[in-house]
Amino acid sequence: MYTSSREGTDSFFEAIYTQRAIRRFKPDPVPDDLLLRVLEAATKAPSGSNQQPWRFLVVRDAAKRKAMSEALKAHLQSNEAMRTYFESGAQSDDRSKRLMLTGALELAYHIDAAPAVIIPCLTSGSDRLLGGSSIYPAVQNLLLAARALGLGTVLTTFNMGIDGMLRELLGIPEAARPVALIPIGYPDGNFGPTRRKPVEEVVGWDGWD
Amino acid sequence: MYTSSREGTDSFFEAIYTQRAIRRFKPDPVPDDLLLRVLEAATKAPSGSNQQPWRFLVVRDAAKRKAMSEALKAHLQSNEAMRTYFESGAQSDDRSKRLMLTGALELAYHIDAAPAVIIPCLTSGSDRLLGGSSIYPAVQNLLLAARALGLGTVLTTFNMGIDGMLRELLGIPEAARPVALIPIGYPDGNFGPTRRKPVEEVVGWDGWD
Repeated sequence: MYTSSREGTDSFFEAIYTQRAIRRFKPDPVPDDLLLRVLEAATKAPSGSNQQPWRFLVVRDAAKRKAMSEALKAHLQSNEAMRTYFESGAQSDDRSKRLMLTGALELAYHIDAAPAVIIPCLTSGSDRLLGGSSIYPAVQNLLLAARALGLGTVLTTFNMGIDGMLRELLGIPEAARPVALIPIGYPDGNFGPTRRKPVEEVVGWDGWD
Repeated sequence: MYTSSREGTDSFFEAIYTQRAIRRFKPDPVPDDLLLRVLEAATKAPSGSNQQPWRFLVVRDAAKRKAMSEALKAHLQSNEAMRTYFESGAQSDDRSKRLMLTGALELAYHIDAAPAVIIPCLTSGSDRLLGGSSIYPAVQNLLLAARALGLGTVLTTFNMGIDGMLRELLGIPEAARPVALIPIGYPDGNFGPTRRKPVEEVVGWDGWD
């Protein structure tokens, strides 16, 4: 239905159906006003009682991106479970899984290859699953708006492994919680359709089954 | 920039900028194929390792909607913190807050006024905040796709207060976690711009401040 492309789009369903993980970026910086358009779209997401409990950190500074990248690489290399996961995936017979995992590892080792990294933070609310309803809708608006404007992103929670380092590097207060680490830049690769189960398989009419 | 309307749109940014909480619905049922278009859009959200750890329950059955509505009303009436919150809001000098809270309470007491209620469930993964990254992006795609197709929704976590009842009513397995309760229907009210802080106020360039 939709084809691969690197161009932006103002078609709603094209954006939805072709927003995919972009893990390789051109080195060109993204203008601040374009980043602000992406982030303004994020702020239009639903917010209970209109509290807007979020702050978006945008790391463009090369030295800070380099420091994040090195911390992340060291974390992944020292974490046996993560290493096993990535290595087993890289040897998978499933080509798409293999590409995804080698791409994810490559990205994790070189997160600073993206000209900017966005770290959305939840500034109040619950640390439990349902607390995610206050921030991830905004994160998804961000990813979609980037795609509509021709910018690539990939949603990661790599922040989890380097939380202390990130807080120190970026001055994140204790009460705030980073919820994702999102590289953003002009894509070196195409947007395009993703493979998903047929929708009928994930819908329960009037009950689970 | 964008005006109020009840019509659908295929403009990406119009959908993003005018998706707002719709708390009043026409009684007309929504055709199943339209609900499936909304839910297919949900499945196109990012999913780590393409695991798609979700199931979407769609409650159209009138008796089941009525049972949910009564359970929710009883829960809210017996929960002092919730009652105080809604009552204080209803007396607020801030007109927009007053309208939102009286609307939310009205909705909670009559959730079955919507012709269908969608309950997205996370089927695996963490019960912590970051686990939300596996399901709420799909939830936001759902809300946006509904708006693009001219359907109203409002993101609530009303499921939280009636979790046991919902599990029994809908046969939700223990390992799955309902993450939201979303009425959906043709809007009796307009889509339109929401009020948010200027984006510059919620962005930190290269650090928190």
